[in-house]
Amino acid sequence: METRISSKNQEVTIGGSRKTVFIGERINPTGKKKMASALASGDLDYVLREARDQVEAGADVLDVNVGTSGVDEVKLLPEVVRLVQQEVDVPLCIDSGNPAALEAALKVYQGKPLVNSVSGEERSLEKVLPVVKDYGAAVIALPLDERGIPRDVETRLTIADKIVERCASLGIPLEDVVFDGLTLSLGVDSRAGVVTLETIRKIKEKYGVNLTLGASNISYGLPGREIINGVFLGVAIAAGVTCPIVDVAKVCASVLAADLILGLDNYGLRYIRYWRRQQQSNAQS
Amino acid sequence: METRISSKNQEVTIGGSRKTVFIGERINPTGKKKMASALASGDLDYVLREARDQVEAGADVLDVNVGTSGVDEVKLLPEVVRLVQQEVDVPLCIDSGNPAALEAALKVYQGKPLVNSVSGEERSLEKVLPVVKDYGAAVIALPLDERGIPRDVETRLTIADKIVERCASLGIPLEDVVFDGLTLSLGVDSRAGVVTLETIRKIKEKYGVNLTLGASNISYGLPGREIINGVFLGVAIAAGVTCPIVDVAKVCASVLAADLILGLDNYGLRYIRYWRRQQQSNAQS
Repeated sequence: METRISSKNQEVTIGGSRKTVFIGERINPTGKKKMASALASGDLDYVLREARDQVEAGADVLDVNVGTSGVDEVKLLPEVVRLVQQEVDVPLCIDSGNPAALEAALKVYQGKPLVNSVSGEERSLEKVLPVVKDYGAAVIALPLDERGIPRDVETRLTIADKIVERCASLGIPLEDVVFDGLTLSLGVDSRAGVVTLETIRKIKEKYGVNLTLGASNISYGLPGREIINGVFLGVAIAAGVTCPIVDVAKVCASVLAADLILGLDNYGLRYIRYWRRQQQSNAQS
Repeated sequence: METRISSKNQEVTIGGSRKTVFIGERINPTGKKKMASALASGDLDYVLREARDQVEAGADVLDVNVGTSGVDEVKLLPEVVRLVQQEVDVPLCIDSGNPAALEAALKVYQGKPLVNSVSGEERSLEKVLPVVKDYGAAVIALPLDERGIPRDVETRLTIADKIVERCASLGIPLEDVVFDGLTLSLGVDSRAGVVTLETIRKIKEKYGVNLTLGASNISYGLPGREIINGVFLGVAIAAGVTCPIVDVAKVCASVLAADLILGLDNYGLRYIRYWRRQQQSNAQS
């Protein structure tokens, strides 16, 4: 199944045995002090630099989240979306838990964005999906509900069914729904990886939809995080993830290697080009 | 399915949702000049140092291959096997294309080894399997035949069927047959990864046997080999590989991460212990 999103001038197609699409995660204040204070103080140059750097590193799509204390999301989110769209020509993933902020950002967005996110919570389904439908966006769906992130696969799938039904009843096509496999930390629950991978396989098998993943949660609190994240991304892509949300510069090599291994990089051209560029920039520095 | 092999005092069980078993690849002169000249000149101290180093790095089993020009395998293989068994107490994987050398080594081996390997070639089936049966060994089976390594999954599976039948007719139990997924280089064939992974999945699905893999071939001739090897091992372990043949020190972190992700490392104890030891040895050096 193919999910098409766009910026002003560029379309990005997710899925259909194409290369893995990188959604850059760095415009998000959660756990990032510098980004949080830049957003709170209105230092949008810092945000735009992050936008450029991520696209330079290979991001195909940028997640934009401005939610932090001292920020009026309804005002700031559309402003940042507008400025980021002026700065870089990639589709955005508009990320907020505030439906009014989402709608304000969708109003100014040029193209067809991803909306991050809807969940199985009644409040979210009621507030977010109509906006997604009105603006013809695609949406990331989280298989969690009022009780939080389920530890087991069955409950996640039941919630996924509910979200799919609600999207269908509003006329949001299935190809515009991108599910998130939902990663908990292995440091907290040894079964976190197994449950996420099984969720991905089952949702893909049942609905054939595209899947995203905030992969770095998996290693939270553990040593050697980049090794875990790299291997986890490879296994998750093999299981069905097509557009992970990642720190592109950090995981690029692993994801390109996964694409190469899985037959998504003919003649290894992208992988080899990546290493040439690494060598060139090492030689220059 | 569980494959049990042993040294004089230790049993190693492969499979049955246990941790991935590391078979150390380094006692093998192929492509290794120092090892080749050590073997040709009878410098067995060098070989024994490799044995110790690999076990120290976490090898559960050691592959022993002495085949290089200037070497009489029928004499040298049993000698090296005997000395390595005196030096380290892990099961061995006796690796030779020469059935007489295999038999000579099996004669002196203490415990139940793996034999590496039998293929679908008539000559191999006829010469190797009776020896495996006589000595009660387990055997690595390569799904290739007189025509070489098949590029396609179907032919590999047909050959696997043939090997399984021949083992059964000789009374070699299925749990003592460990299949090799056979990895070609992605630099030569972009479909090499896909074909190997599909071979692994299909053989596991049909026979439930344990699977090995000489994973490093996958990246031959490509840049960033360790990244490709690490991701490939993760994906291959998720697909069914239970005892890869590897350079343990190089891939240990990736394989431990894969086990952790796949729920084979309760509370992450092995993974965390590995990083503690790394820190300690960094602090000492």
